[in-house]
Amino acid sequence: MKVAISRKEHFNAAHRLHNAQWSVEKNQRVFGKCNNPNYHGHNYELIVTLIGNPHPDTGYVFDTKQLSDIIRDNVSAKFDHKNLNLDIEYFKDLNPTAENIAIVIWNILRPLIPADLELRVKLFETERNAVDYPA
Amino acid sequence: MKVAISRKEHFNAAHRLHNAQWSVEKNQRVFGKCNNPNYHGHNYELIVTLIGNPHPDTGYVFDTKQLSDIIRDNVSAKFDHKNLNLDIEYFKDLNPTAENIAIVIWNILRPLIPADLELRVKLFETERNAVDYPA
Amino acid sequence: MKVAISRKEHFNAAHRLHNAQWSVEKNQRVFGKCNNPNYHGHNYELIVTLIGNPHPDTGYVFDTKQLSDIIRDNVSAKFDHKNLNLDIEYFKDLNPTAENIAIVIWNILRPLIPADLELRVKLFETERNAVDYPA
Amino acid sequence: MKVAISRKEHFNAAHRLHNAQWSVEKNQRVFGKCNNPNYHGHNYELIVTLIGNPHPDTGYVFDTKQLSDIIRDNVSAKFDHKNLNLDIEYFKDLNPTAENIAIVIWNILRPLIPADLELRVKLFETERNAVDYPA
Amino acid sequence: MKVAISRKEHFNAAHRLHNAQWSVEKNQRVFGKCNNPNYHGHNYELIVTLIGNPHPDTGYVFDTKQLSDIIRDNVSAKFDHKNLNLDIEYFKDLNPTAENIAIVIWNILRPLIPADLELRVKLFETERNAVDYPA
Amino acid sequence: MKVAISRKEHFNAAHRLHNAQWSVEKNQRVFGKCNNPNYHGHNYELIVTLIGNPHPDTGYVFDTKQLSDIIRDNVSAKFDHKNLNLDIEYFKDLNPTAENIAIVIWNILRPLIPADLELRVKLFETERNAVDYPA
Repeated sequence: MKVAISRKEHFNAAHRLHNAQWSVEKNQRVFGKCNNPNYHGHNYELIVTLIGNPHPDTGYVFDTKQLSDIIRDNVSAKFDHKNLNLDIEYFKDLNPTAENIAIVIWNILRPLIPADLELRVKLFETERNAVDYPA
Repeated sequence: MKVAISRKEHFNAAHRLHNAQWSVEKNQRVFGKCNNPNYHGHNYELIVTLIGNPHPDTGYVFDTKQLSDIIRDNVSAKFDHKNLNLDIEYFKDLNPTAENIAIVIWNILRPLIPADLELRVKLFETERNAVDYPA
Repeated sequence: MKVAISRKEHFNAAHRLHNAQWSVEKNQRVFGKCNNPNYHGHNYELIVTLIGNPHPDTGYVFDTKQLSDIIRDNVSAKFDHKNLNLDIEYFKDLNPTAENIAIVIWNILRPLIPADLELRVKLFETERNAVDYPA
Repeated sequence: MKVAISRKEHFNAAHRLHNAQWSVEKNQRVFGKCNNPNYHGHNYELIVTLIGNPHPDTGYVFDTKQLSDIIRDNVSAKFDHKNLNLDIEYFKDLNPTAENIAIVIWNILRPLIPADLELRVKLFETERNAVDYPA
Repeated sequence: MKVAISRKEHFNAAHRLHNAQWSVEKNQRVFGKCNNPNYHGHNYELIVTLIGNPHPDTGYVFDTKQLSDIIRDNVSAKFDHKNLNLDIEYFKDLNPTAENIAIVIWNILRPLIPADLELRVKLFETERNAVDYPA
Repeated sequence: MKVAISRKEHFNAAHRLHNAQWSVEKNQRVFGKCNNPNYHGHNYELIVTLIGNPHPDTGYVFDTKQLSDIIRDNVSAKFDHKNLNLDIEYFKDLNPTAENIAIVIWNILRPLIPADLELRVKLFETERNAVDYPA
């Protein structure tokens, strides 16, 4: 049986939900107040999970300090105190819903994590709304 | 790979654990202080999870505002500030353990959620006790 | 300058807000769903604070293990899994609002705590509603 | 001795810290990444406290349902999913630091709360940063 | 479909990460400040999950009061306020990483839980670091 | 009216409660399992509060980023992953109760904070035990 290790990090960002193919009216009807053209924002809580076998020499699946550094250098430092729509290239043509942010983060981290470890991402947009990728 | 979205809601209710087929003594032995005939109560925290693929037009698996409305209209508004044993028909002949409350909520919500989305329910009875259905 | 020490305990109870001097209609208008005659309930979180000077021999204002025992023996064990209106004598003629529960708890604990220590009670009825006594 | 009652509400908003009298360089030096011209954002948690005596007929210092409605109608509904700098008139010429947001909220609520009740505001900008007004 | 029930308990302990086969330098390089020879410590939060079918007579997968007693008697009472390296036999030759502590707890509990119930352990070493076993 | 700003930081440490003037028996009777000669440990959560007037140019009572740096450089970096009794000079002859740790932290920070700002320290030893200095 394998072990999962999880590390929580956070970033604060502004965003706006919007589909450039749609009319103003359809955007407002579908996305409601999340479509505010002046943006709103969140304190995102990010939990990254790696699954594998503890190494017999260390008792670690993966060093959580190293995992924290990978997340901070490649996700938090890039997303924190940013406008996701305007400042982050991944969302130039991709709606920054919690679902899409989690997928983007997974795609950023996947090549940076050893291939034999399964990777999972959980993202809290608010204390009440969260997504997991993969489910 | 699919994405899970989760929405947290809450309700406050009274309940009593009791098996009407059993003697007073057996009820007290099995259910202890949870068998108090005058009821006790909890702040229930309910997390509903839907699993599917984000729609390419919205980036949503499902609109969490709509999910919140479905939970509030069909679960929270019916259970909140109620006595589960006396006021909620589902528990007329069903012991309102956390397990059974979670199953009842799943059964209420299942027909209201698109059939292609997997549905999961997590219910915290206290900060220390929780159930997941399905496991 | 003095030091405050705080200990958190909890109890789960049913209650109903009701004024026996009022009509059914006035009770419903004032207390709304909290007036449900079948009761509802909460997970109460109780924080008891004592203020004084640390003893030079122990570095303690008061032993938190002893404080925990005092709260459990005199409050939690009496209120937990109870119906505040029906099972707790203090609320026979006193509406069990969070305000009144906090005052009752303060009055129970005051004679049990050394007179030279200031006593304060904070009670969370839900994660969103709390009272402090004294303010 | 008086009793304090507290009610927690929340709103999600974008903001930018900026002093229009200062150069770009000074703004960046003083406000750092909080000065991002494209904004960032937070899930603000707001706790409003009223201090007074419980009314003998109700056991309430103030009805927390009414308090919740006052906060939602006058603060949350106006600030939620907004850009504080662009959408909220109070911050047209006032830097939306947590300190200033708390003072603005206190000034909005003060005339709406009975004059014999003391009013206090606590605002969490993140789980790690909070302000209280008055201190 | 089965139901999962979860119970949270806690213990406070000191520990040190160290591989006796390695040099002082390698231990410091790999384990960093976790290798402090004088130990450091944590408030461990332990969540134990059992998965099965609710019994038709009780509505319980397993009585959470009994589960709490099993965890306290066999894990919390033994680990709480202890030095994991020096006081707990399991870690005499096993590095007390969160991964290994979770595996040890699972091995302690497995024979004490009915064989038809699946057992899972989640251990928070800090609010930011957690492990699950099995993953 | 003044404004309070608060910043939360954390450190993980081992400690032992012990009075070197007392017998082994008296130490065990008074401090119980906290007297374990092999130490135990905690995740300490530290909240530092400064009270003053927001500066009209910045809207800040004090920059929370600077406050965070001061706490990290002078408290967290020194106490984190340490044995308070053995590694921290302040506790060579002072029992590291939560009360005394809070007083030590206040004394470390006071000269580093502008004299016109009031300083307060809150320290959580566990989620259930906390101290405030000054009260």
